[in-house]
Amino acid sequence: MSFIHDDFLLSTNTARRLYHTFAKDEPILDYHNHLPPKDIAEDRQFRNLHEIWLEGDHYKWRAMRCNGIAEDLITGNASPKDKFLAWAKTVPQTLRNPLYHWTHLELKRYFGIDELLSESTAEGIWEQTEAALAKPEMSARNILRTQKVRALCTTDDPTDDLSWHKKCAADGFEVGVYPTFRPDKALAVHQLDAWNDWVTKLGQVTNIDIRQFNDLLQALEKRHTYFHEIGCRLSDHGLNRCHATYTSDAAVHRLFERYRSNRTSRRVFEEDREYLASHIMQHIGRLNAKRGWTMQLHLGPIRNNNTRLAQKVGADVGCDSIGDWSQAEPLSRFLDTLNSEDALPKTVLYNVNPTANYVFATMAGNFSDGVTPGKVQFGSGWWFLDQKEGMEWQINALSNLGLLSRFIGMLTDSRSFMSFPRHEYFRRTLCNLLGQDVEAGLIPDDDTLVGSMVKNICYSNAKAYLGLAVS
Amino acid sequence: MSFIHDDFLLSTNTARRLYHTFAKDEPILDYHNHLPPKDIAEDRQFRNLHEIWLEGDHYKWRAMRCNGIAEDLITGNASPKDKFLAWAKTVPQTLRNPLYHWTHLELKRYFGIDELLSESTAEGIWEQTEAALAKPEMSARNILRTQKVRALCTTDDPTDDLSWHKKCAADGFEVGVYPTFRPDKALAVHQLDAWNDWVTKLGQVTNIDIRQFNDLLQALEKRHTYFHEIGCRLSDHGLNRCHATYTSDAAVHRLFERYRSNRTSRRVFEEDREYLASHIMQHIGRLNAKRGWTMQLHLGPIRNNNTRLAQKVGADVGCDSIGDWSQAEPLSRFLDTLNSEDALPKTVLYNVNPTANYVFATMAGNFSDGVTPGKVQFGSGWWFLDQKEGMEWQINALSNLGLLSRFIGMLTDSRSFMSFPRHEYFRRTLCNLLGQDVEAGLIPDDDTLVGSMVKNICYSNAKAYLGLAVS
Amino acid sequence: MSFIHDDFLLSTNTARRLYHTFAKDEPILDYHNHLPPKDIAEDRQFRNLHEIWLEGDHYKWRAMRCNGIAEDLITGNASPKDKFLAWAKTVPQTLRNPLYHWTHLELKRYFGIDELLSESTAEGIWEQTEAALAKPEMSARNILRTQKVRALCTTDDPTDDLSWHKKCAADGFEVGVYPTFRPDKALAVHQLDAWNDWVTKLGQVTNIDIRQFNDLLQALEKRHTYFHEIGCRLSDHGLNRCHATYTSDAAVHRLFERYRSNRTSRRVFEEDREYLASHIMQHIGRLNAKRGWTMQLHLGPIRNNNTRLAQKVGADVGCDSIGDWSQAEPLSRFLDTLNSEDALPKTVLYNVNPTANYVFATMAGNFSDGVTPGKVQFGSGWWFLDQKEGMEWQINALSNLGLLSRFIGMLTDSRSFMSFPRHEYFRRTLCNLLGQDVEAGLIPDDDTLVGSMVKNICYSNAKAYLGLAVS
Repeated sequence: MSFIHDDFLLSTNTARRLYHTFAKDEPILDYHNHLPPKDIAEDRQFRNLHEIWLEGDHYKWRAMRCNGIAEDLITGNASPKDKFLAWAKTVPQTLRNPLYHWTHLELKRYFGIDELLSESTAEGIWEQTEAALAKPEMSARNILRTQKVRALCTTDDPTDDLSWHKKCAADGFEVGVYPTFRPDKALAVHQLDAWNDWVTKLGQVTNIDIRQFNDLLQALEKRHTYFHEIGCRLSDHGLNRCHATYTSDAAVHRLFERYRSNRTSRRVFEEDREYLASHIMQHIGRLNAKRGWTMQLHLGPIRNNNTRLAQKVGADVGCDSIGDWSQAEPLSRFLDTLNSEDALPKTVLYNVNPTANYVFATMAGNFSDGVTPGKVQFGSGWWFLDQKEGMEWQINALSNLGLLSRFIGMLTDSRSFMSFPRHEYFRRTLCNLLGQDVEAGLIPDDDTLVGSMVKNICYSNAKAYLGLAVS
Repeated sequence: MSFIHDDFLLSTNTARRLYHTFAKDEPILDYHNHLPPKDIAEDRQFRNLHEIWLEGDHYKWRAMRCNGIAEDLITGNASPKDKFLAWAKTVPQTLRNPLYHWTHLELKRYFGIDELLSESTAEGIWEQTEAALAKPEMSARNILRTQKVRALCTTDDPTDDLSWHKKCAADGFEVGVYPTFRPDKALAVHQLDAWNDWVTKLGQVTNIDIRQFNDLLQALEKRHTYFHEIGCRLSDHGLNRCHATYTSDAAVHRLFERYRSNRTSRRVFEEDREYLASHIMQHIGRLNAKRGWTMQLHLGPIRNNNTRLAQKVGADVGCDSIGDWSQAEPLSRFLDTLNSEDALPKTVLYNVNPTANYVFATMAGNFSDGVTPGKVQFGSGWWFLDQKEGMEWQINALSNLGLLSRFIGMLTDSRSFMSFPRHEYFRRTLCNLLGQDVEAGLIPDDDTLVGSMVKNICYSNAKAYLGLAVS
Repeated sequence: MSFIHDDFLLSTNTARRLYHTFAKDEPILDYHNHLPPKDIAEDRQFRNLHEIWLEGDHYKWRAMRCNGIAEDLITGNASPKDKFLAWAKTVPQTLRNPLYHWTHLELKRYFGIDELLSESTAEGIWEQTEAALAKPEMSARNILRTQKVRALCTTDDPTDDLSWHKKCAADGFEVGVYPTFRPDKALAVHQLDAWNDWVTKLGQVTNIDIRQFNDLLQALEKRHTYFHEIGCRLSDHGLNRCHATYTSDAAVHRLFERYRSNRTSRRVFEEDREYLASHIMQHIGRLNAKRGWTMQLHLGPIRNNNTRLAQKVGADVGCDSIGDWSQAEPLSRFLDTLNSEDALPKTVLYNVNPTANYVFATMAGNFSDGVTPGKVQFGSGWWFLDQKEGMEWQINALSNLGLLSRFIGMLTDSRSFMSFPRHEYFRRTLCNLLGQDVEAGLIPDDDTLVGSMVKNICYSNAKAYLGLAVS
């Protein structure tokens, strides 16, 4: 039997029945990823596994480094094929790491390959996949079609003109390709020059001369509106922890002026940054609530720990960790402050430190609105938690402390067109847990009850909750 | 087979044997709950499931809110029956949440109902239970008898006159109904007006004019003595984290005077509150040690996160979270300070954040006295952890880091007379773990050894440890 | 079947095959323990179980205290035999605690005893073991031979003359007995008198008059060189959390002078201690990197919580807890600072709080060097985590977030010559996990792949990584 087979991850008969009957054929709503919309708009054809698989995947880079591979073969000047060979050599060393599963699941689903990747099979797999990738059915758009993606949401800067998203729509591409509003740069006052440049750029794309804090808010709203018109229904925020320290409007305005003018000469105080970021995030929250958007908070990582590599190769190259900041108080304050003025949008809380799962799952249950089921979501296992153990912990925490039945489920969060089988992986993991529960008598053996929950989590809940246009 | 059946939660033959032989028939010593003693004293007869089940259960309220139910149907003006119907509609959505288990276990044990509660079965169950609740055997006292409760401890303010407890005793009710000394209000200096009112009230019930810190200590001791005479043997404390910051007696006295006089005009400094609370808690610890009481510390929640709902409905209505404060240092300092003067009472540490289980379980092992087995207890899974996964984690942490055999076991912590089957739930979970261990060869297959441990944890350890009068 | 049998802990056929084929016969490289080198040099013969088992084992002391045993029978004046009997009485109460497993595994492996230790078997076991221990094959050196120990590393103060290690080598003892450089006392500025005494002693053994900070650094380097010549290849550091707060060289020098002179009269400021410790640790890191050593960081405990017992019996007697400090930021800064100047040595991160497993496992993956596989190791489950659950968590965290295949595996960390079967315990646990994975289809059923990983983790990885001389 091949390593990836029909019942991969499904350890009970009930799990197999649930997966094959209720989960397998559901379409995909990939509501958060980092795919380049340009690739979709231009219907990119990938030349080889390096392009579609290794080019931007810092998970693989990191594993290769831990395996003692030199940087040249990872992000350096080595040839695409040599880089692939270095990766292939690393794969057998990733046993028990999710990369081992992703790798073979993706080879199987995209190319029908059952061989396990290693130094000895690398050449053959390189050639076979090169040939397959040259075919039209492996273009970016056809991959989306084959994978049954109904809509997807990329991650975009507020200053982005969204021309690639527009082109997809103008072409009549049947898969919804929507932007996500990610204004992280608006908060990065501590990188003062880059921040001022970004604010200036925001001013240019909105025709607003941003001198005062209110100008910034107005410009952000203008872009929010623009994104809304292109079909955007989510914002996204990458934060160590929530910014939720408030001061008077007058004080924020003074702080903004201080850092907006005379820049390079100024030292940025941490508390000033916290105030500004808190008020900007509050503004985004209000905008989201007003327009019925969903706000995604990705909380907890400690990024770019390796300064030397960051200077050599850049940021976000696979030298990140899970942080251990206290999250409960600022998260509570942030949500409560918006909720107090009836301006809390639908919100998804993503947690990168599994020890905070119970904190997040309970916080999500505090801010219901009497109308929206699962108003505040405890989001799917993210980044380092996007693996079997991590997914199971998230599902169990949500189950024990909230309503799993109202969960909007999985997303890829990926930079690669090869990553859609992560939805399959999640669904198998979900059905496996439920199957175990049924067979242990922990939940009723009732397909109407359990099967409909599965279907809802795979697709319908996200569709109903997010309000994205889906054909 | 019905969902709740004889071997519910028991996955191995050994588990089934252990549960049915050693656990099932043990009586209950419910040493911590929030039952209204008035209901017992008056032998209340409940009119319907709303009264006995939904009236005060913020766990259910919270789940209903997460399901998108309007507040009117939860804590508002809707009729009891409509509220019950809203709950019934929510139940199928709680799949994998402990509420799903509690609900059906309680319906089965109290009413013999095997049907699963849902919108379609709600009417019938409402009627069937209404009829059953009207019978004498379902009065508050008869429920305690049927559930084999030997003694229970409610949670009471030091100013309480304990008349209901006295009435139970005076009636010769064979179940011990004891108060627990919960002086949380003595620590709440930050709510200055309410605190002063409470101190004044304490002064009135003790005939002490409380002007100085020593007056407060004396008044607390007087009530401690009064509670002791009614059979009280435990204190209880709800804290975010331990107060263990000490200063000179003179300084505490000055602080007390500051806040006790000229009240509303004063801002309360966090560090002042910490000093006062630390010295009051130290005093309570000493009183407990002197009288052989057990001190219960409930640590870690972050309460009433939703200000808007708190203003509308009140505190403690189901908008609470698990907090993530560091606990180890203040907990260590608090216990060590008492221990250093040989005034550490028997203590139970309850932890609401499962990531602190190992911290708590190890801290409990530091303060033995050469006489009392399990002197400092790591208490049973509490609040959000009062479910299968949470209980298992607590049992495993205690097992790996301490002596499970000396554990005083379960309590309901509940506001409802329907909650006694949580002892059964705990016992099944315990026997299930032990049964797995026996069958995996991790502990000997020896009923004398394992069975006696089960019996002890179910009842005998608590009886021996707490020293409550039990008929 | 006896409690400890051939397939103890091995729950699947694959686990059994993996263990018996690949793990069982691998030798032991015990690269971190607290054995007294004198016992090896003198080839100590132990008189009874108290000497070899109870004399220095604060794990057992702690369990006895939790069982209500008086201190006299633990660390006091009672006879060795009475202390053993008190321990024997406690053993049945340790069910589900790792002590229950260690105890019976050790009795079986060293004495072939299958009886379970309890009050009733204690006498017989005392006599049987007394006789056995008198035989030459149970001398310290013969135990090492029987246990297939190829090399071991003790834990030693930089001022130690290492004469016992030298004697072992001079005797031509075939087991490598190496010191580990543990300069914790150099950091303990807050214990000012003891610190100054230690610095003075360091000066004496190095013939350096230590007046300035640079003198200290030079003296440490001199001892580092000395240790290197005796075969030392590891340093070890016991820390609450990393010291990683840097200031100018001039400022450190001033601080050193301040505390080095006029001692007792000075209060030590916490931030001063942090600066000094940070710069000393940085120096050690550089020395380690220069000489190709491995740096071990043991992070997270909160020690000697019970002041009264510490005053009576001493430090490190079993009153320690797991701490809950945030670790990520100082750990990142410490490693990054060394890495930035290309002076990060091979490093092993040991974590005592399991909630930080994911933090540690991700941090280890940030600092590769393009050459060394597994450059920064996430070390084996330590202290309170040195048990089945704790080991499994560490293995799973490492697997999911890094490369298990590059793991250098187990060490005893023990003070007793009876503890070598912990390697067996670890190997069984590892094989059990892998066997489950194979049978669940989570990793390929391929003995070449999985079996070689097992062998590497048992011995070869540590041998290749640490660079110790092994015969």
